[in-house]
Amino acid sequence: MTVTQEITLRTDGPGDIIDITAAVREKIIEAGLTDGLVTVFCPGSTGGITTVEFEPGLRRDLPEFFEKLIPSDRSYHHDETWHDGNGFSHLRAALVGPDITVPVMAGQPTLGTWQQIVFLEFDNKARTRRLVVQIIGD
Amino acid sequence: MTVTQEITLRTDGPGDIIDITAAVREKIIEAGLTDGLVTVFCPGSTGGITTVEFEPGLRRDLPEFFEKLIPSDRSYHHDETWHDGNGFSHLRAALVGPDITVPVMAGQPTLGTWQQIVFLEFDNKARTRRLVVQIIGD
Amino acid sequence: MTVTQEITLRTDGPGDIIDITAAVREKIIEAGLTDGLVTVFCPGSTGGITTVEFEPGLRRDLPEFFEKLIPSDRSYHHDETWHDGNGFSHLRAALVGPDITVPVMAGQPTLGTWQQIVFLEFDNKARTRRLVVQIIGD
Repeated sequence: MTVTQEITLRTDGPGDIIDITAAVREKIIEAGLTDGLVTVFCPGSTGGITTVEFEPGLRRDLPEFFEKLIPSDRSYHHDETWHDGNGFSHLRAALVGPDITVPVMAGQPTLGTWQQIVFLEFDNKARTRRLVVQIIGD
Repeated sequence: MTVTQEITLRTDGPGDIIDITAAVREKIIEAGLTDGLVTVFCPGSTGGITTVEFEPGLRRDLPEFFEKLIPSDRSYHHDETWHDGNGFSHLRAALVGPDITVPVMAGQPTLGTWQQIVFLEFDNKARTRRLVVQIIGD
Repeated sequence: MTVTQEITLRTDGPGDIIDITAAVREKIIEAGLTDGLVTVFCPGSTGGITTVEFEPGLRRDLPEFFEKLIPSDRSYHHDETWHDGNGFSHLRAALVGPDITVPVMAGQPTLGTWQQIVFLEFDNKARTRRLVVQIIGD
């Protein structure tokens, strides 16, 4: 069985972290998947997907870390190409990656208790994001 | 065919790197998979999975790199939430990611000769880890 | 259906970024896949796979970022083991990861308009690279 679905979300711009775990769980249930895997993918080169404990402290730590690692106020060659000022967004997104694959057992993603699937908005403005949630298995 | 299995390992705490390639190969053989993919996933938000040449030099280089990038002796907002002192662990794990997917051909993962699948312990104490190894294919 | 294929490419050495999107699309068409997923994997521990907007600016930004993050002119313990001077290559590759998984819908990978699948050459010399492209689905 292969079921490809989408979830849509609204972000507040750079540094925003959205917990998409509940939406992914819902799609697994809708698909009726018992055992298999779920891949979540961001079509776009300024967003990332990973897992993290979704709590207020880390929601500040992560953006602070990326700001230090790849500063938003520095000039990048990308900005010479497009002048949209989001070179830093592209670099952060390429580093984190746009995909995650999580095994599903007995209808549940095999996440840890304090582990959430999150979308990281790296772009320099608020955006509506469409993510692909694909389920493969039995 | 979907087969979901687990491997259990004991880590020595932060910086420990465990070569899980042999265990993953064994699970592929147990499942009888010829062609398909294997996904290895860490349920937990303070460990990472990637590939590396598992040799003594890199086993020192990797922890030194992460210590420089995300120092363990700095204060993080996460620690204000939980006071468990492992904010750095969460940041490192979110950056590396908890999953890897490797194609399997003729019953073997398509790894390079000097490439091993490894678990990176980022937490600030020794832990027993349970990893999910899921096999999908024919 | 599981179809495992390979693509071969020639890189110019460290910092080279190769757009493999067209090759991956071709493999999906050859396999006749309608819905499923494609996993691209680098067998080797000195190359990485991610997505990025493949344009001249970012093709300079990415290597500059990695050079700053993990300098090539510093000494690494790995080099004490093998004396091949590519310790930095291994660290960069372990960080980015060797795999990407992209959902396929209606015969097309669900990439964004300005998003390409790329191979990042991290090794310290030009190389011929063989990548695995595996397709699973219907």
